Amino acid sequence: MIVVKAGGNGGIDIEAVCADIAELVQQGESVVLVHGGSHETNVISEKLGHPPRFVTSVSGHVSRYTDRQTLEIFAMVTAGRINKLLVERLQQLGVNALGLSGLDGRLLEGKRKGTLRIVENGKRKVLRGDYSGKIERVNVGLLNTLLEAGYVPVVAPLAVSQQGEALNVDGDRVAAAIGTALKAEKVIILSNVPGLLRHFPDESTLISYIPREQVEDHLDRYAQGRMKKKLLGAVEALRDGVKQVVIADGRVAQPLRRALAGQGTVIQ
Amino acid sequence: MIVVKAGGNGGIDIEAVCADIAELVQQGESVVLVHGGSHETNVISEKLGHPPRFVTSVSGHVSRYTDRQTLEIFAMVTAGRINKLLVERLQQLGVNALGLSGLDGRLLEGKRKGTLRIVENGKRKVLRGDYSGKIERVNVGLLNTLLEAGYVPVVAPLAVSQQGEALNVDGDRVAAAIGTALKAEKVIILSNVPGLLRHFPDESTLISYIPREQVEDHLDRYAQGRMKKKLLGAVEALRDGVKQVVIADGRVAQPLRRALAGQGTVIQ
Repeated sequence: MIVVKAGGNGGIDIEAVCADIAELVQQGESVVLVHGGSHETNVISEKLGHPPRFVTSVSGHVSRYTDRQTLEIFAMVTAGRINKLLVERLQQLGVNALGLSGLDGRLLEGKRKGTLRIVENGKRKVLRGDYSGKIERVNVGLLNTLLEAGYVPVVAPLAVSQQGEALNVDGDRVAAAIGTALKAEKVIILSNVPGLLRHFPDESTLISYIPREQVEDHLDRYAQGRMKKKLLGAVEALRDGVKQVVIADGRVAQPLRRALAGQGTVIQ
Repeated sequence: MIVVKAGGNGGIDIEAVCADIAELVQQGESVVLVHGGSHETNVISEKLGHPPRFVTSVSGHVSRYTDRQTLEIFAMVTAGRINKLLVERLQQLGVNALGLSGLDGRLLEGKRKGTLRIVENGKRKVLRGDYSGKIERVNVGLLNTLLEAGYVPVVAPLAVSQQGEALNVDGDRVAAAIGTALKAEKVIILSNVPGLLRHFPDESTLISYIPREQVEDHLDRYAQGRMKKKLLGAVEALRDGVKQVVIADGRVAQPLRRALAGQGTVIQ
């Protein structure tokens, strides 16, 4: 069982990812593909006259403010565009892909943040009406039902709250949560860098191996921006039963084969 | 087993439809919800700077010209927006809804038209690059797997061609095809009129009953525009095992309960 995170955030060679997935599936491997959608959501939000808004939390993290309108655009772009284009490409390669969001069949249950504590112009503010969340439960039964019936699940990063609200969740964390729930052997997170870099953006400073007990230390010392979420996902996945997480380059030919061969940052 | 077509084309009280579905599901009824998306696709296509194009076929039918860009917008709006908002609403009402498009797991296989023969300014033309199609096969196994596991499938009107291309298909025909495949007792098609009208748009001229052998005759004499597709769907469904098709008003309170009580145009 391999869980792959790829797509939706620009720079990744989706064609090559899908070709590798087709090869893996043909070899009898079980695969779940998880994708993101931040970049395309920004593009379409601009076009629809509702530009994205990013805020800085009190603890210094930059994140999207997901008001209801943004949530609906995010759902439309991730579950309707990115997800269906991936499913279509995989179908063309003979893979019986089946796209879902975390809302469908309560695949991913999450806790809504609701309120963001942010810093704006040096002042602390409380921002209400946010529709992002943190995953709390994966409906493993649904994934297993689909996998046993021969489908390759392709998952869009939405979750459903206890109250049934759709939530925007982070794709890297979705991959980690699904990897954990399925007790996957490997979780591979493809990115537009070769892995964790000691001196970002110098790609010659790739850290090729991190022992699992040192991930949090590396996170504090080297990870910037979205790489932090990838490492946080890795910490969670390894703690809860995944054997190996690889953060690897998604811009190259055979990106999955390379990642499976240990190219990238291997965390174990 | 009841297959319901509602939503995506304006005028229908989706809130009331979802409430009725929740009631039916609670009573132990198996339900599949199919939706459309023409109206919202038009709105978002305009906003994205790719306005819809409608063409008149040689036989006089008006239809959307679905070029590749339109197909991608149609997929985004139907599978990502309408579908997920319906799933969210049903989840809030305690229904474990699961949204799919016909592309997912090859739920709906179709034949691509590709070429449209149209009449424009009095001249016959051939228009290539169309991505609409006609449903040829329903993956009943997938629907049964989901229904048996307790999910309520919510289906967006896309199909997949033999070659794995996504296709725009008509929602009314999707409902008819799924009704047939599942040998549903009833197929209910909700619309923004009370049913088939003898003198459109005079709602006092509702035809409340059509014996199945007279549907084609009624189609030729009374049906206009999209009502033709609803009746064509009814003909196919009744021919292939569905017991009853009701074309009913989706603008009213308790729209499904009323339709199940025989309000609308009952075809049997």
